[in-house]
Amino acid sequence: MDVAQVLHMNGGDGDYSYSNNSLLQKVISMTKPIIDDALTNLYSALNFPKTLIMADLGCSSGPNTLLVASELVKSVYKIRQKFGNDESPEIQIYLNDLPQNDFNAIFLSVSKFRKNLTNQMVSNNSSSPCYISGVPGSFYTRLFLRKSLHFVYSSYSLMWLSQVPEMIDINKGNIYMSTTSPPSVIKAYCEQFQKDFSTFLKFRAEEMVSEGRMVLTILGRQSDDPCSKECCYIWDLLASSLKDMVAEGLIEEEKLDSFNIPQYTPSPKEVRNEVEKEGSFMIDRLEVSEVNCDASTGNNLNLSEEEDVQGYNMGKCMRAVAEPLVLSHFGESTIDEVFKRYAENIKSSMSREKTKHINVTVSVIRKG
Amino acid sequence: MDVAQVLHMNGGDGDYSYSNNSLLQKVISMTKPIIDDALTNLYSALNFPKTLIMADLGCSSGPNTLLVASELVKSVYKIRQKFGNDESPEIQIYLNDLPQNDFNAIFLSVSKFRKNLTNQMVSNNSSSPCYISGVPGSFYTRLFLRKSLHFVYSSYSLMWLSQVPEMIDINKGNIYMSTTSPPSVIKAYCEQFQKDFSTFLKFRAEEMVSEGRMVLTILGRQSDDPCSKECCYIWDLLASSLKDMVAEGLIEEEKLDSFNIPQYTPSPKEVRNEVEKEGSFMIDRLEVSEVNCDASTGNNLNLSEEEDVQGYNMGKCMRAVAEPLVLSHFGESTIDEVFKRYAENIKSSMSREKTKHINVTVSVIRKG
Repeated sequence: MDVAQVLHMNGGDGDYSYSNNSLLQKVISMTKPIIDDALTNLYSALNFPKTLIMADLGCSSGPNTLLVASELVKSVYKIRQKFGNDESPEIQIYLNDLPQNDFNAIFLSVSKFRKNLTNQMVSNNSSSPCYISGVPGSFYTRLFLRKSLHFVYSSYSLMWLSQVPEMIDINKGNIYMSTTSPPSVIKAYCEQFQKDFSTFLKFRAEEMVSEGRMVLTILGRQSDDPCSKECCYIWDLLASSLKDMVAEGLIEEEKLDSFNIPQYTPSPKEVRNEVEKEGSFMIDRLEVSEVNCDASTGNNLNLSEEEDVQGYNMGKCMRAVAEPLVLSHFGESTIDEVFKRYAENIKSSMSREKTKHINVTVSVIRKG
Repeated sequence: MDVAQVLHMNGGDGDYSYSNNSLLQKVISMTKPIIDDALTNLYSALNFPKTLIMADLGCSSGPNTLLVASELVKSVYKIRQKFGNDESPEIQIYLNDLPQNDFNAIFLSVSKFRKNLTNQMVSNNSSSPCYISGVPGSFYTRLFLRKSLHFVYSSYSLMWLSQVPEMIDINKGNIYMSTTSPPSVIKAYCEQFQKDFSTFLKFRAEEMVSEGRMVLTILGRQSDDPCSKECCYIWDLLASSLKDMVAEGLIEEEKLDSFNIPQYTPSPKEVRNEVEKEGSFMIDRLEVSEVNCDASTGNNLNLSEEEDVQGYNMGKCMRAVAEPLVLSHFGESTIDEVFKRYAENIKSSMSREKTKHINVTVSVIRKG
């Protein structure tokens, strides 16, 4: 089973999806000014087009999947008003994710999404008709017709690599890049990211019109060091749980040695380097933002209760991300024990220090 | 629950789907010369376009869903060879059905479909890249951007009305048009078909480019009489089962009185009339064909066994079509008894006479 399949075995579970409600909402609202800016420039660069074709790559499936589409349509509506343009463009939004994604669930909520959207617009007549379509496949392959897209959006997807990097040395005692990883492992991770991100850019360049815009938010890091704690710490906690289980004879050491997470959280500099090296896109904006994972639950709890709930939520969230990978590698029998220990590790770590996500957002323009 | 939802409650069941394997394969192979002809004319009328955008409306979900896409791509491949055109056009195929359709199942089979397609082409390099996308929604609404489609295909879908016709008289003892239906019921059915088909044509006209082509195969009838046996007989057999159950007190008479099938099988003349009245399309070809439902099972059975198996298959097939409608109207408790009796009626009817489907196929051109 390839990584893509494994990553989506547990997809579409609204309850403990990684793309959880509040986190994705925060990311969307933080990215909104960048999206608005990109769409405004796109709209005038294309001379007020009658149709706008957009894609959300790695859309996932859950209560927020259509939130992005909704923001895009509302943004176009406002821009059109700003320019005093009477004619609504028709908008096509492609929702892409791996074929294992639960597209059925998304499609069943499309009519409600349309109703909500109409209610939020000032007048029904002036809102843009919006057509939703699902596109199954990896965004590391071609997905769309040549020169067919005006705008591409992707959030919290491009840190997933197309595969676990091929390593010449064993990443002993680790499951991700770590300060104790051999240099060859770090190099393999960096090169896999470069290859994947560059492939992504190349294919999108083929699919996008000249002057087309792309806004990508990637789970990343601020530091130049790929083994920086900000991105590796959460995986170290899982590695630690697995190592304990190896020590207790519950998991074979060889099993742990051959397990690595197919993720890479790039720095803004690395993102810039790849965009410039690939050459099809010009960088308009490149920004780093933080999302706290330990925001108050808003439930009037005391500090210790708050920490418990936050730790519990983070544990659930990480289980949703990691469970398919752990399950397919270590099997059904150990899974509950692994995540019980991992959740404990997360909880005790969160009581010691604040946890935050670093987002790297890049807004690019397809060169003419 | 609206008719559309009910019709698809039982959708996507490959085992006893109405769009069953052999029937759909027959229809596709019978329609193939008409599709080839339409695509050839389209391809040269558009002056060998670099991209071709096609849609299969009412694609359903089952082993044959991607068969249509496959035939379209192979057809373009052959046409391109015929014209000695070196450059492969890129092909986008939209698969449309109601949101309740099992798009997940289709999407999971896309990569296998691509592999099969590549194997069937003479050389990988010269085959057209094909992008598959799912579009949820009723084809009695707008589904695509304006002027975005080159070719539209639909098979065995347009006989389904958008709703049960509104009737001023009760269709006493019937569940469809019948020789004993009040004239007002027949009129309501005819008018609903005219309204729905005309809406379909109007929206497709908005979505298609000038010179675009559409090939539609509709379950229909040869006779001008809408109560002709060829289309009503199969529903009369269900009505008869339901009436027997009313007589035995198993179903309330009022329940039967308010149950009607939202289907209309038009004659070629009616199809021609609606296309001409709506005015956006020119008819290129209009053909009627027959598909026998009692073809040999190929299992070396004697005549009586063959009849039994054919009757059984037809019963299963009609259960797949009618079960969602019957279930939502009469409820869970009666459903097995209804279909047991219906299957018996079908079996004994099929032993008396041959059953066949009448297809009306129309190939139209979007006027300039």
